[in-house]
Amino acid sequence: MRRIKLIVAYDGTKYSGWQVQNNADTIEGRLNTALSSICGEDIRVIGASRTDAGVHALGNIAVFDTESRIPAEKFAYALNARLPEDIVVQKSCEAAPDYHPRHCSTIKTYEYHILNRTFRLPQMRNNTFFCHYALDVEAMNEAAQYLVGEHDFKSFCSVNTQAETTVRTIYSIEVTGRSLSTAVPDSEDEDGGEKFDIDRGREIVIRVSGNGFLYNMVRIIAGTLMDVGCKRRTPLSVKEALDGCNRELAGPTAPPQGLTLIEIKHVGMN
Amino acid sequence: MRRIKLIVAYDGTKYSGWQVQNNADTIEGRLNTALSSICGEDIRVIGASRTDAGVHALGNIAVFDTESRIPAEKFAYALNARLPEDIVVQKSCEAAPDYHPRHCSTIKTYEYHILNRTFRLPQMRNNTFFCHYALDVEAMNEAAQYLVGEHDFKSFCSVNTQAETTVRTIYSIEVTGRSLSTAVPDSEDEDGGEKFDIDRGREIVIRVSGNGFLYNMVRIIAGTLMDVGCKRRTPLSVKEALDGCNRELAGPTAPPQGLTLIEIKHVGMN
Repeated sequence: MRRIKLIVAYDGTKYSGWQVQNNADTIEGRLNTALSSICGEDIRVIGASRTDAGVHALGNIAVFDTESRIPAEKFAYALNARLPEDIVVQKSCEAAPDYHPRHCSTIKTYEYHILNRTFRLPQMRNNTFFCHYALDVEAMNEAAQYLVGEHDFKSFCSVNTQAETTVRTIYSIEVTGRSLSTAVPDSEDEDGGEKFDIDRGREIVIRVSGNGFLYNMVRIIAGTLMDVGCKRRTPLSVKEALDGCNRELAGPTAPPQGLTLIEIKHVGMN
Repeated sequence: MRRIKLIVAYDGTKYSGWQVQNNADTIEGRLNTALSSICGEDIRVIGASRTDAGVHALGNIAVFDTESRIPAEKFAYALNARLPEDIVVQKSCEAAPDYHPRHCSTIKTYEYHILNRTFRLPQMRNNTFFCHYALDVEAMNEAAQYLVGEHDFKSFCSVNTQAETTVRTIYSIEVTGRSLSTAVPDSEDEDGGEKFDIDRGREIVIRVSGNGFLYNMVRIIAGTLMDVGCKRRTPLSVKEALDGCNRELAGPTAPPQGLTLIEIKHVGMN
């Protein structure tokens, strides 16, 4: 019996999340079906991160055990030939027999993307949250720094959590804005038009790395930072929300389509 | 009677192109239906650029005449409330009564995007062409410079053209590569994996501006430059193809999903 590790990218738009459920189309379900067909065994993968419906990934991790003799690196090609175009395995390799993607120290990195301009862009509708209020990126970044370190993130966790502890460590958060100036036409021209309110708009990225995240934690952080960005709350109120350990003190849960699991790194022993 | 100008962005993935056809879902058709409903008249737009099936736009231009008294800038909001999420009007404004988007001097800018890495990325499947051969961006850019200026682009035009002349002016072409390093997980980790062949991959962008483009011209330029990028032909052979005025001397027509009409600027009058 061998244990194989996969790095999996997906556009989560059409899926009911990672985890297998009855009568729902899931990433895990698609991988199980494709692997069972390839190996001629009943294969069940274990995922590192059970992303929600509509959430995307560039580097989620899945492992499975198989009796097959297919070379490990060939699984990526065999799977991609069978998976739909919105799920693409980026790599397959051998893993240690005792490797479990949820039972080891990890650094997980997520990005939450916000399209901040007057009008929506159809090209970005499935992987950004659209916000037409001008957001103050510096205030968002200032607020975000209160969350760095080991804290009880109870205020930033869905009340539906089943976690034993709500203590987690955030290693870094950066909030950055990227101008869309070369990508989007200028609206000022000779026939009397005005400039877009917030020039051509920006893509704002909240990039957060930590040792693990509670249920909805990144989306609640994103929703709270957007409240700071549009002056609905102060940066300091984010520290107060953290210290209060009460979900009602933090902001709303931002919608799933802005969220992407970028990568999972294992640290030390597997 | 007033003439109104629209700037229109769309994800062309699901559409049979801009131009109205029988039994086909088109951008022009969607605009006509939404505008006729808003104005209570039979409205027919005129488009500046009749993009092909699967091609996208950030700034195509459409104009229409109406008897309605709706303020010009309100059309964008009224249209966006009725249009599907993959078509978004970016601006609406008054235009001169004799303004015609195809009968005036313009600078049109297109971008062709190529995802150049070992494995596909599901997030980029609808707006890039995927190429797993490593492409030489410098060679592509060198070749592209032969196309700048006023030339007979007969070699870079579909043989199905109905154009009266195949002479056009290209003002600039730039081929640039953007690393995907922050966006894509590193494949090298402790459990014996190798690096991706072409590191984490790149997005290559061919950005071209000109006074107008023949049928399939940007896609044939992109296909020819990709042949240069993977050493199937030399940069100098692109000059020879141009000079030869024969479609067979240029490379293949690159697929539509990599192409986006970025903007159209009118120069001089209107």
